[in-house]
Amino acid sequence: MKVSELGEFGLIDLLAKMANVPQAGPASGQPLILGIGDDAAAWRGDTSTQLATVDSLIQDVHFPSGITSWEEVGWRAMAANLSDIAAMGGQPRYALASLALPGDTEVVDVTALYRGMLALAEQHGVVLIGGDTCRAPLVIITLTVLGNTKDPAQPILTRAAARPGEPVAVTGELGTAAAGLRMLTEKLQFAPEVTSRLRQAFLRPCPRVAEGQLLVEHGIRTAIDISDGLIADLNHICTSSQVGARIEVDRVPIHPAMKASFGDKALELALAGGEDYELLFTGQLEVINRVKAAAACPITVIGEIVADKGKGVTLVDSEGTPVNLGKTGWEHFTPE
Amino acid sequence: MKVSELGEFGLIDLLAKMANVPQAGPASGQPLILGIGDDAAAWRGDTSTQLATVDSLIQDVHFPSGITSWEEVGWRAMAANLSDIAAMGGQPRYALASLALPGDTEVVDVTALYRGMLALAEQHGVVLIGGDTCRAPLVIITLTVLGNTKDPAQPILTRAAARPGEPVAVTGELGTAAAGLRMLTEKLQFAPEVTSRLRQAFLRPCPRVAEGQLLVEHGIRTAIDISDGLIADLNHICTSSQVGARIEVDRVPIHPAMKASFGDKALELALAGGEDYELLFTGQLEVINRVKAAAACPITVIGEIVADKGKGVTLVDSEGTPVNLGKTGWEHFTPE
Repeated sequence: MKVSELGEFGLIDLLAKMANVPQAGPASGQPLILGIGDDAAAWRGDTSTQLATVDSLIQDVHFPSGITSWEEVGWRAMAANLSDIAAMGGQPRYALASLALPGDTEVVDVTALYRGMLALAEQHGVVLIGGDTCRAPLVIITLTVLGNTKDPAQPILTRAAARPGEPVAVTGELGTAAAGLRMLTEKLQFAPEVTSRLRQAFLRPCPRVAEGQLLVEHGIRTAIDISDGLIADLNHICTSSQVGARIEVDRVPIHPAMKASFGDKALELALAGGEDYELLFTGQLEVINRVKAAAACPITVIGEIVADKGKGVTLVDSEGTPVNLGKTGWEHFTPE
Repeated sequence: MKVSELGEFGLIDLLAKMANVPQAGPASGQPLILGIGDDAAAWRGDTSTQLATVDSLIQDVHFPSGITSWEEVGWRAMAANLSDIAAMGGQPRYALASLALPGDTEVVDVTALYRGMLALAEQHGVVLIGGDTCRAPLVIITLTVLGNTKDPAQPILTRAAARPGEPVAVTGELGTAAAGLRMLTEKLQFAPEVTSRLRQAFLRPCPRVAEGQLLVEHGIRTAIDISDGLIADLNHICTSSQVGARIEVDRVPIHPAMKASFGDKALELALAGGEDYELLFTGQLEVINRVKAAAACPITVIGEIVADKGKGVTLVDSEGTPVNLGKTGWEHFTPE
């Protein structure tokens, strides 16, 4: 069987089983809390829970050559990783960068890439402490980010704690990053303020680090960051928590300018677009309301967790009638 | 300027300067001990010094397709990273694997790759706790390994502590891995026991984790693992410690079967071959002798640190006469 037939998530499942079964246990020295299968790995440190995540950006797969500047590629690589730590409710601390580059890459391009990574890292107090550079026929940036919770008693946000009846909520607005990518690749023309907003969302996403910590502090226990797309990421929660979920599509937060510019496509981009790096979470309504009062960004309830795990994510309109959409999120390896 | 003109080490220097100047400091939360520029990064944890390293293996750059099996590629990727933790005197604990693969890769090949990584990881009590998989036109394996010292008072081995007059020593034998690569690529024929030894050295290297810890416990403070080649790696120590070094080429430990099989080439492979994953270290002679008495592997003094930092590494014969060799180690990006 080919990797493309098994799919990215099938492959991850298979590898996670190989890695965890024989190895978890006392030999590890420190007690492992979470291995493969969440936004970040977690283990018990001495004074806090330690977190680690890794993510690769590959030329022509994750960033189209010629559309994204080197600085923006660096920023986005850092954003993807910081977002994973944010989705655990943690504080990112250190980063390691592995750069694979063709030998004829201009040095100024590499330093621009680094500048982009460092600019976002600095905003979050993250220090780049190590790395590796090597020659390759195309550009690959692999970032590892290490972080921790503020104290040992503080729980982490996982994908596995969602319970039927809990509302599902998101930070910010969805689909804007995917709309930005479409605008750039298809050279679509919009009003300057719309163009600027869409560009920013795709090229300079802001990971929700403070918001992730706010969620934990207020008692939320289930979260994931939206990197594959709302439906795909909510599906990850459903699988890990063994529940289903229902989204009321009319409640999904979409910027008015995006609706005006993309029409019917706007909803599809919001549901399946990916790379928004917003947080998707579940919890009791009163807890979500407290989060909403404390957060600096919009928090929107978009649906709820249901007991029927067999169905995964169901889309309904405001009257509860099922809505059908084809594409459900970004999955690597799937034949296109 | 192109990356290939600047060279791998020039690029690392440039990036290290960018990363460290604006960022090191109180914002990092935990006090950084070592950033970019050693085998691993190090920072003060609560009960021990924490270590982190990252390394990528790229198809056709680090492993020739068709010669190395998937399981061996996995093993070597893990070995390269564990060796970096060994060269700090640390204990590796956790690993994160980022796999980039073409969609038409066979799933059994990916699981074989994983099996190779896990086999070596288990030998050292290392748990694979996370990762990332994505589509790419070629195979790239990026591993991050996290480790720590046994207690907070225990120092780490760095590249920067070598002092003039200290003998330079190595573990094991050198050049065997490079000889193995040559044997495989050039389809050279040797006696079965030689073939087996050379294959093993290149395809299943054993990182010197226990030996690294032994060095620290006995008072050694300077070490590096031999991944780029003896001369290149000793040069890294010279640069970081602001010293020079002299190697007596006749003292470099080379397996007799390798000398018999490769003749004059054997020395060149031992000095410049790379990927031996032996430890290269300096220290007072009495300390080295204590290490030698305690170690399970051969420890050989091959030269000494000198004050003249301008010359880097000098090669001499047993009478002190300079010896000249062209190639001085594996450097990425250098035009070939």
